[in-house]
Amino acid sequence: DFMNALEEVHPAFGVSEEELQQVVQNGIIHYDPIIDVNVTKDVPFEFWLISSPGTPEDWPTVCRARTGKTALAATIAQASTFPFIKLITPDNMIGFSENQKIQSISKVFADSYKSPMSVIVIDNIERLLDWTPVGPRFSNAVLQSLMVLMAKRPPKGRRLLVIATTSLRPMLTELGLSSFDSELHVPPITRLRGLEHVIEAVELFPRSKDRARAIAMLQQAGFKDGDVGENNRLSIGVKKLLSIVEMARQEPEAVAERLTKFTRASNIMSLTNYAIA
Amino acid sequence: DFMNALEEVHPAFGVSEEELQQVVQNGIIHYDPIIDVNVTKDVPFEFWLISSPGTPEDWPTVCRARTGKTALAATIAQASTFPFIKLITPDNMIGFSENQKIQSISKVFADSYKSPMSVIVIDNIERLLDWTPVGPRFSNAVLQSLMVLMAKRPPKGRRLLVIATTSLRPMLTELGLSSFDSELHVPPITRLRGLEHVIEAVELFPRSKDRARAIAMLQQAGFKDGDVGENNRLSIGVKKLLSIVEMARQEPEAVAERLTKFTRASNIMSLTNYAIA
Amino acid sequence: DFMNALEEVHPAFGVSEEELQQVVQNGIIHYDPIIDVNVTKDVPFEFWLISSPGTPEDWPTVCRARTGKTALAATIAQASTFPFIKLITPDNMIGFSENQKIQSISKVFADSYKSPMSVIVIDNIERLLDWTPVGPRFSNAVLQSLMVLMAKRPPKGRRLLVIATTSLRPMLTELGLSSFDSELHVPPITRLRGLEHVIEAVELFPRSKDRARAIAMLQQAGFKDGDVGENNRLSIGVKKLLSIVEMARQEPEAVAERLTKFTRASNIMSLTNYAIA
Amino acid sequence: DFMNALEEVHPAFGVSEEELQQVVQNGIIHYDPIIDVNVTKDVPFEFWLISSPGTPEDWPTVCRARTGKTALAATIAQASTFPFIKLITPDNMIGFSENQKIQSISKVFADSYKSPMSVIVIDNIERLLDWTPVGPRFSNAVLQSLMVLMAKRPPKGRRLLVIATTSLRPMLTELGLSSFDSELHVPPITRLRGLEHVIEAVELFPRSKDRARAIAMLQQAGFKDGDVGENNRLSIGVKKLLSIVEMARQEPEAVAERLTKFTRASNIMSLTNYAIA
Amino acid sequence: DFMNALEEVHPAFGVSEEELQQVVQNGIIHYDPIIDVNVTKDVPFEFWLISSPGTPEDWPTVCRARTGKTALAATIAQASTFPFIKLITPDNMIGFSENQKIQSISKVFADSYKSPMSVIVIDNIERLLDWTPVGPRFSNAVLQSLMVLMAKRPPKGRRLLVIATTSLRPMLTELGLSSFDSELHVPPITRLRGLEHVIEAVELFPRSKDRARAIAMLQQAGFKDGDVGENNRLSIGVKKLLSIVEMARQEPEAVAERLTKFTRASNIMSLTNYAIA
Amino acid sequence: DFMNALEEVHPAFGVSEEELQQVVQNGIIHYDPIIDVNVTKDVPFEFWLISSPGTPEDWPTVCRARTGKTALAATIAQASTFPFIKLITPDNMIGFSENQKIQSISKVFADSYKSPMSVIVIDNIERLLDWTPVGPRFSNAVLQSLMVLMAKRPPKGRRLLVIATTSLRPMLTELGLSSFDSELHVPPITRLRGLEHVIEAVELFPRSKDRARAIAMLQQAGFKDGDVGENNRLSIGVKKLLSIVEMARQEPEAVAERLTKFTRASNIMSLTNYAIA
Ligand SMILES: Nc1ncnc2c1ncn2[C@@H]1O[C@H](COP(=O)(O)OP(=O)(O)OP(=O)(O)O)[C@@H](O)[C@H]1O
Ligand SMILES: Nc1ncnc2c1ncn2[C@@H]1O[C@H](COP(=O)(O)OP(=O)(O)OP(=O)(O)O)[C@@H](O)[C@H]1O
Ligand SMILES: Nc1ncnc2c1ncn2[C@@H]1O[C@H](COP(=O)(O)OP(=O)(O)OP(=O)(O)O)[C@@H](O)[C@H]1O
Ligand SMILES: Nc1ncnc2c1ncn2[C@@H]1O[C@H](COP(=O)(O)OP(=O)(O)OP(=O)(O)O)[C@@H](O)[C@H]1O
Ligand SMILES: Nc1ncnc2c1ncn2[C@@H]1O[C@H](COP(=O)(O)OP(=O)(O)OP(=O)(O)O)[C@@H](O)[C@H]1O
Ligand SMILES: Nc1ncnc2c1ncn2[C@@H]1O[C@H](COP(=O)(O)OP(=O)(O)OP(=O)(O)O)[C@@H](O)[C@H]1O
Ligand SMILES: [Mg+2]
Ligand SMILES: [Mg+2]
Ligand SMILES: [Mg+2]
Ligand SMILES: [Mg+2]
Ligand SMILES: [Mg+2]
Ligand SMILES: [Mg+2]
Repeated sequence: DFMNALEEVHPAFGVSEEELQQVVQNGIIHYDPIIDVNVTKDVPFEFWLISSPGTPEDWPTVCRARTGKTALAATIAQASTFPFIKLITPDNMIGFSENQKIQSISKVFADSYKSPMSVIVIDNIERLLDWTPVGPRFSNAVLQSLMVLMAKRPPKGRRLLVIATTSLRPMLTELGLSSFDSELHVPPITRLRGLEHVIEAVELFPRSKDRARAIAMLQQAGFKDGDVGENNRLSIGVKKLLSIVEMARQEPEAVAERLTKFTRASNIMSLTNYAIA
Repeated sequence: DFMNALEEVHPAFGVSEEELQQVVQNGIIHYDPIIDVNVTKDVPFEFWLISSPGTPEDWPTVCRARTGKTALAATIAQASTFPFIKLITPDNMIGFSENQKIQSISKVFADSYKSPMSVIVIDNIERLLDWTPVGPRFSNAVLQSLMVLMAKRPPKGRRLLVIATTSLRPMLTELGLSSFDSELHVPPITRLRGLEHVIEAVELFPRSKDRARAIAMLQQAGFKDGDVGENNRLSIGVKKLLSIVEMARQEPEAVAERLTKFTRASNIMSLTNYAIA
Repeated sequence: DFMNALEEVHPAFGVSEEELQQVVQNGIIHYDPIIDVNVTKDVPFEFWLISSPGTPEDWPTVCRARTGKTALAATIAQASTFPFIKLITPDNMIGFSENQKIQSISKVFADSYKSPMSVIVIDNIERLLDWTPVGPRFSNAVLQSLMVLMAKRPPKGRRLLVIATTSLRPMLTELGLSSFDSELHVPPITRLRGLEHVIEAVELFPRSKDRARAIAMLQQAGFKDGDVGENNRLSIGVKKLLSIVEMARQEPEAVAERLTKFTRASNIMSLTNYAIA
Repeated sequence: DFMNALEEVHPAFGVSEEELQQVVQNGIIHYDPIIDVNVTKDVPFEFWLISSPGTPEDWPTVCRARTGKTALAATIAQASTFPFIKLITPDNMIGFSENQKIQSISKVFADSYKSPMSVIVIDNIERLLDWTPVGPRFSNAVLQSLMVLMAKRPPKGRRLLVIATTSLRPMLTELGLSSFDSELHVPPITRLRGLEHVIEAVELFPRSKDRARAIAMLQQAGFKDGDVGENNRLSIGVKKLLSIVEMARQEPEAVAERLTKFTRASNIMSLTNYAIA
Repeated sequence: DFMNALEEVHPAFGVSEEELQQVVQNGIIHYDPIIDVNVTKDVPFEFWLISSPGTPEDWPTVCRARTGKTALAATIAQASTFPFIKLITPDNMIGFSENQKIQSISKVFADSYKSPMSVIVIDNIERLLDWTPVGPRFSNAVLQSLMVLMAKRPPKGRRLLVIATTSLRPMLTELGLSSFDSELHVPPITRLRGLEHVIEAVELFPRSKDRARAIAMLQQAGFKDGDVGENNRLSIGVKKLLSIVEMARQEPEAVAERLTKFTRASNIMSLTNYAIA
Repeated sequence: DFMNALEEVHPAFGVSEEELQQVVQNGIIHYDPIIDVNVTKDVPFEFWLISSPGTPEDWPTVCRARTGKTALAATIAQASTFPFIKLITPDNMIGFSENQKIQSISKVFADSYKSPMSVIVIDNIERLLDWTPVGPRFSNAVLQSLMVLMAKRPPKGRRLLVIATTSLRPMLTELGLSSFDSELHVPPITRLRGLEHVIEAVELFPRSKDRARAIAMLQQAGFKDGDVGENNRLSIGVKKLLSIVEMARQEPEAVAERLTKFTRASNIMSLTNYAIA
C-alpha cells in the first residue's frame, strides 16, 4: 500500500516545481563553496538550518538580509530529488489567523508522511512566527506547533528532512528552537574574490580587461581579499549586488564607475544606517 | 495576456489621480535640492523611505511633522509615470480592524503584480501600524504583513517600487523594518535661503524691496543662512510656513511684521514645548 | 452644491446650541486676561489645546481640575460663529466600545467637512482615551483614530479648527500627541486680584466695604497679589471658588468668615492631600 | 415637570430603605466624634470619600478592614433625607461583566438626575474596580466610567452628593481618582476611651464596677488613652470588637477575662500576621 | 418561613456527606495537638484559614504539600454539626471558564444563606484562583468574587463560617486576601514523637519492641524530638508517611529497615530537590 | 461492579499498544543502569518524573534533547502490566485550543479511575503547556488542570501512577509543579563505556577487533571513561548516536573513521552552538 499512498501524494501534493522555480529564478552562482553543499541521500540528520551568520552587531540589518538563504534552501531541496518537496513560506499566509497557519503547516507535515522520503523547506521562520524584537512578540501557538512537528518522529519507514531559513539566528536560541542537526551560514559577500566571481558569472564585462579594471576600482574603494577580521570591512548581499549590476549595466560607457559607486553607497548606508542616497 | 491583465487593472485600480492630487494640492515649491529627486526608470531599488531626519532629540515633535514628506512621495510617484500608482494611507482606514487593514494592503500589492511597473506609496507608516511609544504598542499583525509583502519578490517580469513615509525613523529600526534600499530625509526649513525661496514662490510680497525687508527682519529674529550646527537653531516645517504666510497676508500693511512675529512664535512653541500662543 | 451641503448640515448636525449652553451654564467671568482670547477669523492654525498648566508636581491634582477649561473651549467655539460647531465629550460615551467611540468621533469629523468653516471641541481628551497612569493603560485604537483625523487635511475649500482640552498635559507628550499649533493654559486662581474679580462678579457682597474686608481676610489667610514664585502658594479652581461662594452666601451675617474658612480648608486639603474636612 | 419627574423616580428607584437598613443593622455607636458628622443641606461639595486612614504600613490589613466605613456612609446618606438615595455596591455585582457593571452604575446616576437632590453611596470602590495590587490589575473600563460620571455636572437645578468608601486610600491616588471635595477617615479604635464607649453602649457589663475592672484589664493588656504616636500601639476595628463582645458574653462568670484575651489575641494576629489562633 | 427555607435547603444542598467522606478517607490520626481544634458553637469568627506554614524557603515544596490541610478542614466542618456544610474545590471545576467558576461558587454562598448556620470549606484556594508564581498569573475575576463574597455580611439571623485551605500562604498576602479571623498551620511532621504516634496509630508493628527499634533507627537516621530550630531538620508530610508505611508493610521481615530507608530517601529528595530515587 | 467497569474500560481505552510501540520502535539498549528501573507493584508513589538532568548551563540544548526519556517512560509503563496504560502527548494535540487540550487530558484521567491500577504517561510536559522561556509564556489553564488532576486523589480502591517527561526540569520548579515522589534523570551518554555498549548492541562492527579500534579512536577524539567532572566533557544523546551509527554504516570500509568524525562534529556543534556542519 506504500505505492498507493505515494500515488495519492503526487497529484495533490508532490514536488511543487513552480514554487521552487519562483524562488530560484535565475540559477545559482557558486561564488562561495557553501553554495555547493549537497544533500547526499545517506545524510541521517533530520533538521537543517540555513541562517545569516552572527549576532545583529556583526552586520547591520541591511546586510544580513537577502544573502541568498531561500535560494540555497530551494537548491538543496531540488538536488535531493526526493519524491516529496514542499515549501512552507509566510508569503502564502498573509492575513492568516494563527489557526489557519497551524492547519496549513501541519497539513504539509501530514502529507510528507505519505512519501518514503520528503523534504520540507520552512522559509523565513521569523515571519512565520510573527516575530518582532519589540516585546518580543510572536505567535506562541505557531511556535509550539512547529516545535512539536519538528520533534515528532515520522512513521516507521518514512524519512523527513526539514530545512529552515532565518535572518535572525539569535531569535531561535532565545525561543529554545535550537536543536538543529546541521547549520549552514550564508554570509554577505565580503571578499573581492566573491565579488569578482559574481561579476564574471553575470557577464557584466564582455572584455576581461574591463572586468579587471572594475575589480581594481572596487579594491581601491575598500574591498579586500584577505582576512575578514578587520573592524570596518565592507560587505554586500548577493541580491543587492545583482541589482547594482543591473543598474550599472544601463550606461554602457561608465559601467565600472557606476558599479563601484553604487556598491560603495550601499555600504555606507548599511554602516551608518541613516544615510542619504 | 499581459495586455489583458493591464486592461483589467486600469479601470478598477490604475493610477489614483484624484488621491494624488489631494495630497499635493498646490504644487510643489523647490526650496531644497531634495525636492528635485527624480525616479529615473533605471533605478533598480525596490524600497524607498522618506522620513523626517534625526532622533526625537534633534527637533521637537512639532518640527518633525508636516515637512512635506507625503507631498514629496506623491510627486516622485507621479513623476515615475508608471501605469500603476497607488496610495496606502491610514486616512482611509479609520476604524478598520487589523484584518481589514491587512486585506486592503495586500489587495494593493496583489493588484500591483498585474502591471509591469508599479509604484506603491505607503504613507505615514507609524499610523498604519497603530504605533505608540508608550509600551510600545502597535499592530504586530499589520507589521508582519507589511514585512512579508515588502520582502516578497514580484512575479517574473514585474517591477515594483515601494515608497514609504514616516515621521518616526527610529521606530522602524526598533521594529526591524529597516532594509530600505534608499532613504530621503525631508527636514524642516532651517536656512534663511529656504525661507526666502518659499516666500518668493508664494508671491507674498509683490515688490522685491518689501521681500528683502522681510528677510532682513527674519534674519534679525534669528534665522541664519550658514551652517546648521548651532545648538539653538530655528526651524519650521513647510506646512506651517505656508499657513503663516496665509495669515500674514491678511493685513496688507504689516505683512513683514506679522510674518516675522508668527514664525518666531511658532519656534518658541516648538522649542519650549509649553508656550503661550 | 456647497449651499446644499450646508443646508444638509444644519438640521442634523450644525451648531449644538444646547450642549454648549449646558457647558457654560452661568456665563463666563473674565477674572484673567486668558479668558478674553478671541478666535479671529484669520487664525490659520488648525489645532488648539486648552490645558491645566504644569507637571503634576506643580499643583496637586485637586487644583488642576475644574479650572474652567471646558467652559473656555465652548466660549471660544461660540465666539467663532462658524456654521458648524460640535462637542466631542466622554460624557456621552459611557459604556461605549472602542469601535462605537471611533465611529461617533469620525462621524463628527466627516460632518464637519460639509461645512466651509467648522469648530470641533474635543473635551477631556484623557477620558476619551480611557487613560490611567497605572500601566499606563489607554485605548490605542481611539488614540490612533484621533491622530489620523487631526492630521488629515480637510477637503479643498474647507477649514477646520480643533480645540482639545485636557487636565493631563504631560500625557499628550508621552503619547506623541503634541503637534498643536497653539496652546492655552487655564491655571487655578492664585492671585488675590483674581479672587476679588470673581467675588465682585458674583455680587457676593452688596456693599463694597464688606468686600474689602473679605479680601483683607483672604490676604491674611495667605493669598497674595505679587509673584507666583513662592513655594507654598495658595490656589483654587474657579469651579470650587464658585461653590464656596454659594456656601458662604447661606449665612448672611458671617459671609466673609465662612468664605475665608472654606477657601483655606480647600487649600489645606489640596496641599496635604489627606486632610479631614 | 419637576414634580412629575420626582414622582416617576419614587416608585422605581427612590430611597432604597431596605438596603440601607441591611448595611446599618444594629444602629451606630458614637464612640468617636467622626461618627457624628452631619450632612447639612447647605454643603455644596459634590464628592466625599470615607476611607481607612494611612498607608498599608501604618496598620496591618486586618485592622484597616471593617472599621465601619459602610455603616458611616449609609448613616450620612440617611441623615440627608434627600428624596433619592442609592447604594452602588459590589455585593450585587458578582459575576457581572464590565459592561453590566457600567450599565448598572450609569443607570443609578441617570436616575439620580431626575430628583432635585440625590445621594449616591459608592461602597468599596476597590472591589467595584476589581483591583488587585498584583500587577496591578483592575477594570479600566469601570474606572473610566466612574471618573466621567463623577466629573459630569448634573443637569441644571439638580444637586448630587456622591459618597464613596474604600479601605485602600493609596489606590485612588495611584489611579488618579483623587479629586474629592472632602475626606473622612474611619480608623480602627486605638484608645481605651473608644473601647470603653463601645462596651458601655452594648451593655456588656450590667454593673459599672465590672466594666471598670474590664477596662483596667484592657489597660494592663496594653491599650492606652494617651497619644497614638507610639510605635507598637494596639488597635481593633469596631466590627471585630463587637464580635469579641458577643463571644465574651457567652460565659457569664469570665466575661472580662475573655474579652481581654480575645482582644489581645486579635491584636497579636494583626501585628504578626502569621499567628496561631 | 425559616423552617421552610431550611427544608428547601436540605434535599438539594445540605451537608454533602459523600464529598466529606471522600476527603477524610481513613479517619484522622491525632499526631499533633492542632488536629484536635474544635469549632465550638460560640466562635464568632467568620473566616478561618488552614495553611502550610512558613515561606517557601522554610520547607521545600515537596514538604509543604499534603500535610493534611483538607482533611483537617473537613474534620472541623463535620464536627460543627451545622445543618449546611459545603465543599468548594477545584477538583470539580476542571475546564470551567472563569464565569462558570464564579457561578458555582456564588451559588454555594447563596444556598448557605438559607440555613441558620453554615460552614463552607474553600479547598486549595490557589488552584481555585489558577495561581502561578510565574507572572504571577491568576484569575482576577474569581479572586474579586471570592473577596466580595467573603466580606459580604450574611442576612440577618444567619451565621456563616468559611474555612479556606492553602499551601501558598504568602500568595494570599500578596493578593490582599488576608483578613482572616483565625489561622491554623498544619506543618509536616518534624518530631520523632509525631512519627511514633502515626506509626502506632496505623499499627505497623504488632509488637511494641519492634516499634521501639524502628523509632531508634529513625532517630539514628536524623529525626529528633527536641526543638525544631536546627537548620537541617528532617520533616515529612502525613500523606507521604502513610504511603511509606504502606510500602514498608509489604516485606514483613524488613519493615523497620524499609521504613527508615524510604523516610530518609524522601527527605533527601525534598532537600536537594534533584535526587535520584 | 468493579469488573463491569473494567470491562467497560478495555475496548474503548485500555492499553494503547500501538502508541507505545511507536514510541519504543526498536527496543531498548541497556547502556546505563537507569534503563533497568522497574516499576515493582508495591511502589506506592503516585507521580514520577523523567527528565534531562541539570540546568541549561550544564549541557547545551542540543544534548539535553533526545536522550531517550519518552522511550524510558513507555518502557516502564509497559513493564508495569497495569490494565490501563495511556499516553498523553502533544503530538496528538497540534492546533488544539486550550479547552480541547484540557478536555482530552481530563478524559484520560477520568477513564483511568475506572481501572483498579493505571499508568498515565504525560510526555513532553513543556510542549503540553505551550512553554516558551521568552516571557515566559505558557498555557496557564492547561497547567492548572494538570496540577489539580495530579493532586486529586483517585477514588477509593483505585491506584494511579503518573509518569511525566521533560527536557526542561527547571521550568517545573518555576511553575510550582514540583511535588514528584520520584525523579529519574536520563543524561546524554558521556562515558566511553556507554558508547561501547550501544555500538555493540547495534552490531555495527561484526568483528570485535574493529570495534576495539573504533573505541580507541573515540577515546583519542576525547571520550573518556573516568569521572564526569571535567569542564569540557563530550556527550551525545542516544538518538543522535544511533543516527550516526546508521550514517557510518553506509561506507563499509571507513566505518570507524566516519563514526568518530560524526560523533566529534556533533559535539563541536553542541558546544559552540554556531558551527558549520
Ligand atoms: N548564489 C546565487 N546566485 C545567483 N543569484 C542568487 C544567489 N543567491 C540568491 N540569489 C538571488 O538573489 C535574490 C535573493 O535571494 P534570496 O531570496 O534567496 O535571499 P534571502 O537570503 O532568502 O533573502 P531574505 O533575507 O529576504 O529571506 C533572488 O532573486 C535569488 O535568485
Ligand atoms: N515643497 C512643497 N512646496 C509647497 N507645498 C508643500 C511642499 N511640501 C509640502 N507642501 C504642502 O504642505 C502641506 C503638508 O505637507 P505634507 O502632508 O506632505 O507633509 P508631511 O510631512 O507628510 O506631514 P505629516 O508629518 O503630517 O505626514 C501640504 O498641504 C502640501 O501641499
Ligand atoms: N471664567 C469662568 N467664569 C465663571 N464660571 C466659570 C468660569 N470658568 C468655569 N466656570 C464654571 O465652573 C464650572 C467648571 O468649569 P469647567 O467644567 O469648564 O472646568 P474644567 O476645567 O473643564 O473641569 P474638568 O477639569 O473637570 O474638565 C462650570 O460650572 C463653569 O460654568
Ligand atoms: N459606629 C458603629 N457602631 C456600631 N456598629 C457599627 C459601627 N460601625 C460599624 N458597625 C458595625 O460593624 C460592622 C461592619 O461595619 P462596616 O461594614 O460598615 O465596616 P466597613 O469598614 O465598611 O468594612 P469593610 O472594610 O469590609 O468594607 C457592621 O455590622 C456594622 O453594623
Ligand atoms: N491527621 C491525619 N491522620 C490520618 N490521615 C491523614 C491525616 N491528615 C491527612 N491524612 C491523609 O493524608 C492524605 C492527604 O491529606 P490531605 O489531602 O488533607 O492533605 P493536604 O494538605 O490537603 O494536601 P494538598 O496540599 O495536596 O492539598 C489524605 O488521604 C488524608 O486522609
Ligand atoms: N535506551 C535506548 N536504546 C535504544 N534506542 C533508544 C533508547 N532510548 C531512546 N532510543 C531511541 O532514540 C530515539 C529518541 O528517543 P526518545 O524519543 O525517547 O528521546 P526523548 O529524550 O524523549 O526525546 P525528546 O527530548 O525529543 O522528547 C527513539 O527512536 C528511541 O527509539
Ligand atoms: Mg529568504
Ligand atoms: Mg504625511
Ligand atoms: Mg472639562
Ligand atoms: Mg464596607
Ligand atoms: Mg488539600
Ligand atoms: Mg520525548
